[in-house]
Amino acid sequence: MPLLPSRVASANDPTSPFPLNNLPYGVFSTRSAAPRCGVALGDKVVDLHALEGSGLLNAGAGKPVFDKPSLNAFMGLGKPYWARVRSRLQALLAEGETRVLPNAALVPLKNVRMHMPFKVAEYTDFYAGRNHAFNVGSMFRGPENALPPNWLHIPIGYNGRASTVVVSGTDIHRPLGQMKPHGSETNIFGPCRRLDIELEMGAVVGTGNPMGKPVTVSEADEMIFGYVLLNDWSARDIQAWEYQPLGPFQAKAFATSISPWVVTRAALEPFRCSTPEREHELLPYLREPKPMLYDIDLSVRMRPEGAASATTLSRTNYKEMYYSAAQQLCHHAIGGCAMRTGDLLGSGTISGPTKEERGSLLELSWGGKEPITLDTGETRSFLEDGDEMTLEGHASGDGYRIGFGDCVGKILPAPAERNWG
Amino acid sequence: MPLLPSRVASANDPTSPFPLNNLPYGVFSTRSAAPRCGVALGDKVVDLHALEGSGLLNAGAGKPVFDKPSLNAFMGLGKPYWARVRSRLQALLAEGETRVLPNAALVPLKNVRMHMPFKVAEYTDFYAGRNHAFNVGSMFRGPENALPPNWLHIPIGYNGRASTVVVSGTDIHRPLGQMKPHGSETNIFGPCRRLDIELEMGAVVGTGNPMGKPVTVSEADEMIFGYVLLNDWSARDIQAWEYQPLGPFQAKAFATSISPWVVTRAALEPFRCSTPEREHELLPYLREPKPMLYDIDLSVRMRPEGAASATTLSRTNYKEMYYSAAQQLCHHAIGGCAMRTGDLLGSGTISGPTKEERGSLLELSWGGKEPITLDTGETRSFLEDGDEMTLEGHASGDGYRIGFGDCVGKILPAPAERNWG
Repeated sequence: MPLLPSRVASANDPTSPFPLNNLPYGVFSTRSAAPRCGVALGDKVVDLHALEGSGLLNAGAGKPVFDKPSLNAFMGLGKPYWARVRSRLQALLAEGETRVLPNAALVPLKNVRMHMPFKVAEYTDFYAGRNHAFNVGSMFRGPENALPPNWLHIPIGYNGRASTVVVSGTDIHRPLGQMKPHGSETNIFGPCRRLDIELEMGAVVGTGNPMGKPVTVSEADEMIFGYVLLNDWSARDIQAWEYQPLGPFQAKAFATSISPWVVTRAALEPFRCSTPEREHELLPYLREPKPMLYDIDLSVRMRPEGAASATTLSRTNYKEMYYSAAQQLCHHAIGGCAMRTGDLLGSGTISGPTKEERGSLLELSWGGKEPITLDTGETRSFLEDGDEMTLEGHASGDGYRIGFGDCVGKILPAPAERNWG
Repeated sequence: MPLLPSRVASANDPTSPFPLNNLPYGVFSTRSAAPRCGVALGDKVVDLHALEGSGLLNAGAGKPVFDKPSLNAFMGLGKPYWARVRSRLQALLAEGETRVLPNAALVPLKNVRMHMPFKVAEYTDFYAGRNHAFNVGSMFRGPENALPPNWLHIPIGYNGRASTVVVSGTDIHRPLGQMKPHGSETNIFGPCRRLDIELEMGAVVGTGNPMGKPVTVSEADEMIFGYVLLNDWSARDIQAWEYQPLGPFQAKAFATSISPWVVTRAALEPFRCSTPEREHELLPYLREPKPMLYDIDLSVRMRPEGAASATTLSRTNYKEMYYSAAQQLCHHAIGGCAMRTGDLLGSGTISGPTKEERGSLLELSWGGKEPITLDTGETRSFLEDGDEMTLEGHASGDGYRIGFGDCVGKILPAPAERNWG
């Protein structure tokens, strides 16, 4: 599919992340407009509430859905409604279209503040990138025992914390916590010393399933509204001490950042690709009837406090995952777990096979043994206060890109210690 | 403190779980009344919405809070409001009080249907009972290595699934899932064969903390609105295959049952007791300035399909926990995790030191090696379809009890298998 030309000229630039082919959804406000739903188009945000108010757009729910400070009402309507709105917007915003848009309908992106695009019902994080699992497993158990016995059979996941999922641009406090540093006889309390990122994609559940009613992989795919970039901030020293036997807890609970824009499944359709060849055939319930991964280029940049520019630390691709989000969602519901509008599923860290494709500092610095040199000449094993991390991602079409908007977060010092007693 | 006599005579029976000293909160409906908030008193439910409407009760929020189908609005107001309403209700409902109550204010318990008392924001489950951790650890790693190295230093917990927390009386489908039975070469898919319960208490968070702002143990204690009985249904075979390295996931996601009534911290105040003596002193942030556990007798009953009566399988006490809910909540927020109104914290399985005090079938049947004989003559290692499990709990005061209402759930067959391909 080629570029769809838009009446918004900036959307026709082949390097724009937001052509008419994309139309990612987000929640924005301006000095005069309370948070509401919009789509990005070139250097503009299309105010869907304004279009709805003018009668040009009708999601079909019988009442407004875009006046709200979250996408949940619209997402909950389901696929036929998503398709109708997309088709209507692509017509209204096409090049040569002359219907008059309300004055307030096109807002310059530089004038808006982005908010969390949806209310996160629950957040689940997976561990479904084989290179990442192999790298981390090798560091801790040696390459022979790197993958746990279940790894090639189950998309391994754990429940994360929804209350601290934040939108790009939100600063992140270094967490306090309990840890037992390497070589130390005793456990201690204090600020995390091995603070890390994880480069992930997040799948956003649009429509759910009732408790006790599992879904197939195909049904799961249809339940997904769209995808975001996701940074699963991680406190490696807290994690190492706490994670046995029940998994990561406070090491992951302090923050998860997502991109401001949710790119729809419809926009990503041309970029579907297959999961890698299976070493063991999956059980029937997990087999994909068609390609359900996506070819999306991803990168990680770090900018230390005060530096003029950022250093690119890693470049990889979402297609490195061993399991797709549809497989993860199917597995998530297979025991009868109810999934709901607004559930967020992190893919797991995305690392390619080479060193330059690793999606976490833990892997890039090999557990701190091989510090990374930045363009500024500084070195890093883990994050320092003031470091700003940016995830970027886009799919590349024929003369256009499908982008997510950067996912940015900067590290602030740990909260002051208190008199805990 | 002695029994507080009530104008509702049935509340003065010393065996009633619901005297005026208790006043636990729940959400109920009748044939003519939509779900709304109430408190249990003797054999009645006091309709708080009716009291609010008549002007006899004012929570102080400037608008009604008890007309809603959840306690969240009231819980979010905080401790001074909770205290004001409790004191007002104890005055209005005291013996000898003559203010006329609206006709609809007292509804027979036998005529109401109970609903989820609050909207669960997020659900976290802990592993903070030492006897349980020792028993389970002994089965899997031998008694020498039963407790993980961190166990005596951290209240170990993991994020659970909020979407499947259900109120007592909700039937539970046996989950489907992936497992690798003992001795099998390959993993298989099918209905869980080792279905279990876990006897727990749940702490309900009334007021939260912002992201990046940890709280002390004392502050955490004040954030807790009340407690429920909690049955953390568990699929042991699914758990054994999936839980490495990131913890329980689908083995716990299919259902968690809670009692219909939330017993407030105020009602439990006379029953505070200390956590057991520490083997290792805790880090300062986890130390309790005063007793924060409670002396609550607990029991587990099983009634097989068609049996006239239930067999009591276990009797234990909440004071067996090594960590209090206040310590768990403090630890949960210590890295900066935001806690919110409606968060539910499971205590972890409560087992006493003797066999008769074990809070799970896994422990009672020692991994299935020592089946339990029921009063009917049948035996059980794990749950069979049709089994009905009941948790009961109460604190014993001077001539009165503080009860929670039974927490009941019955096992239905697994969902029919589908053509997954």
